[in-house]
Amino acid sequence: MSKMHLVAYLKTGPTASFASGWRHPSATLDDLFEPARFEYMAKLLEDARFDAGFFADGLGIPDVYRNTFADYVGRGGQVSLLDPMTVLPIMARVTSRLGLGATLATTFHNPYYLARGLASLDHLSKGRVAWNVVTGSHNAEARNHGFDAMPDKNMRYERAEDVLAACAALWDCWDEDALVLDRESGVYADTSKIRYADYKGPYVSTRGPMSMPRSPQGRPVILQAGSSPRGRDFAAKWAEMVFCSPATKEACLEFREDMVKRLRAHGRAPEECVILPSLSVVVGETESIAIEKKEFLESIVDPELVLASNSALLGVDLSDVESPEAADQGAGSAGVQGSRDRMAQRMKAEGISYAQAARKPRGLIAGTPAMIADIMEDWFRSGACDGFVLPPAVFPLTYEDFGRMVVPELQKRGVFRREYAGRTLRENLRNPG
Amino acid sequence: MSKMHLVAYLKTGPTASFASGWRHPSATLDDLFEPARFEYMAKLLEDARFDAGFFADGLGIPDVYRNTFADYVGRGGQVSLLDPMTVLPIMARVTSRLGLGATLATTFHNPYYLARGLASLDHLSKGRVAWNVVTGSHNAEARNHGFDAMPDKNMRYERAEDVLAACAALWDCWDEDALVLDRESGVYADTSKIRYADYKGPYVSTRGPMSMPRSPQGRPVILQAGSSPRGRDFAAKWAEMVFCSPATKEACLEFREDMVKRLRAHGRAPEECVILPSLSVVVGETESIAIEKKEFLESIVDPELVLASNSALLGVDLSDVESPEAADQGAGSAGVQGSRDRMAQRMKAEGISYAQAARKPRGLIAGTPAMIADIMEDWFRSGACDGFVLPPAVFPLTYEDFGRMVVPELQKRGVFRREYAGRTLRENLRNPG
Repeated sequence: MSKMHLVAYLKTGPTASFASGWRHPSATLDDLFEPARFEYMAKLLEDARFDAGFFADGLGIPDVYRNTFADYVGRGGQVSLLDPMTVLPIMARVTSRLGLGATLATTFHNPYYLARGLASLDHLSKGRVAWNVVTGSHNAEARNHGFDAMPDKNMRYERAEDVLAACAALWDCWDEDALVLDRESGVYADTSKIRYADYKGPYVSTRGPMSMPRSPQGRPVILQAGSSPRGRDFAAKWAEMVFCSPATKEACLEFREDMVKRLRAHGRAPEECVILPSLSVVVGETESIAIEKKEFLESIVDPELVLASNSALLGVDLSDVESPEAADQGAGSAGVQGSRDRMAQRMKAEGISYAQAARKPRGLIAGTPAMIADIMEDWFRSGACDGFVLPPAVFPLTYEDFGRMVVPELQKRGVFRREYAGRTLRENLRNPG
Repeated sequence: MSKMHLVAYLKTGPTASFASGWRHPSATLDDLFEPARFEYMAKLLEDARFDAGFFADGLGIPDVYRNTFADYVGRGGQVSLLDPMTVLPIMARVTSRLGLGATLATTFHNPYYLARGLASLDHLSKGRVAWNVVTGSHNAEARNHGFDAMPDKNMRYERAEDVLAACAALWDCWDEDALVLDRESGVYADTSKIRYADYKGPYVSTRGPMSMPRSPQGRPVILQAGSSPRGRDFAAKWAEMVFCSPATKEACLEFREDMVKRLRAHGRAPEECVILPSLSVVVGETESIAIEKKEFLESIVDPELVLASNSALLGVDLSDVESPEAADQGAGSAGVQGSRDRMAQRMKAEGISYAQAARKPRGLIAGTPAMIADIMEDWFRSGACDGFVLPPAVFPLTYEDFGRMVVPELQKRGVFRREYAGRTLRENLRNPG
């Protein structure tokens, strides 16, 4: 029987997608800058047989809400407290199968840096690296990099195509067997198996060759979470994993259908790219425990942080959300299309207004292990998805609970691996065990 | 009594500055991509009480010699096989006092990336990070980043000043006590202690604030190895450690005198910046063992690799080195001034021609522990330097030998620490123990 994929949504900081999760008594706060935090994170996910953990990331502090960064960072929004590229090597060191993903923005980095950093991690992890390709989402990121505001989305995606093609050319500079290391003859590398990249694009150029041998996976697994038509098309061309955040199973089915069409248009088989909606779960030994846990989480939410977080995601200042014009605010080039879609789906599904939806924190699904597994199995078997991205409401509690309670239930049902089938991330994506 | 500083010159690859060192039977080659290699490296240096290890780096494969990369990489030149920023976190994890340095080029990176990556490493290492600021040295690096050739040196240094100032502004965005993490009140950060960087320079701009709290050292220790007047002046303004590669003690004395003048011109005390010449040593239990070890090393040198390596360092193609015009070739904007100076000093000191000097591999100083310590103590006590940078002829052998044989000798003489006096790199630089 086919099995689902599971990917963890991580942050270098105590808040992932659930606002105020850091205030929970089980959220660890004294180890935020400790390598041990990231070692524990990696081992926890590998013990639970996750395909991968990837770090969501942002290159700044959003200041959309009330035109200041104060509410977002002051109340504990999703800020990156460390560069994920500096903690992933530590996670690679203590694991042997878990995929490890970094979010890196093509708008702000050059191809040589991207290609080299990712190939290095692929070497150190023996083939377990993934790149979540983003083009940036809020103006604060753009301003940290010398722009006045986020460049137009089409330009960003054009540059992303260009950067990906340049990276691909760099990753192909060395054949697999080019490194020789023969002391006797003095042949370090067979240079007939190393070539220039000679890539010239509209935005970036790179000559190559890289100074580094081909990495175990050749190139990282590409992840993408674009929801706009342009983003979906980009994903259909490049991605092997797509993240989405539909509010309902129906929305997810529609999304997947659309992606399958786009993949085919690019000459790719649907199996070449897994579709993973995000799901935020709260597990309890009984349903009432789960519901109480969820209510407790909702009770510690800071409503101002929800507005600040949703402002960043939508790209609009929600401080005036009750005004009649609020819903019509244009987001310009900033914000995340997937979040706008999810909000619209939620308004429709729950019959709530724009202002009500804007005040909602991330929805949590509470239940017993069997109830959570039922939902996951239903989405999976009905063809809405190939697995899930799981953001933690509370780190590390969410993954501890999920690994101990839900994973065994999924394994018992035969819809999730007991052991990894492959060594590299790509092998595990193609053969879920 | 004052004590000297010791810094290791590292590479992510088996060759450091001595050509063909990788061919030595003690050079480990089966662990080049293994995290364990870098853990061993870090522990070895910390056990020997080195101030720091730093990775020299290059963003490409030099193709100066014969206008191809083939000799340089094919014969085992100093290519970076991994991005040092991905192995430094692993080294930080297994040590507690050793300083950890990365070489990062201001010409090819943006300030937000540089400031964030270095501050992350400073957090993870609890204050042990150093940045070797370079502006790039060969055209292959420039071509990997979309330039046709290395930009003019003055422009590169102007941009370097700009990038450093931008990074400094980013590092100062958070006061030390801005992170609050009070679950009860919901105050994650005191935003009255966080501010915009608002940096606008001729080459780069960045608004800030960084998403990350102030790191233990506030900013990394700045290293610099510029030898040209422009480079020395840059170092006098910014650096806390300067590396140089004089061929003789006299050249080192002159260099230091010049640097002291420049430091004073920038209103800095000479103690604020240590001067560290590089020294390549081969230690033996007896003098004859040391000399034989040195001769063995010289016997495995590939003469073509020496020419390819020196071509990259000088920025001129030495394939025609016997021609009368060879010595007059202009290097344009590429090459390393310190290498050109060292070559001229060597020609004078050893009475050899340009062609003879161009064919010489890195000079090795062979001797017993006492003989090596004599030389080091002499340079140190005569005021030529504050310590040394030690490149390994063979990794890990050079550091194993040095740590076991020379370090105890230096400690016995009271010129090198037995224990670290401080916790951060900057503390250990200011108080050598």
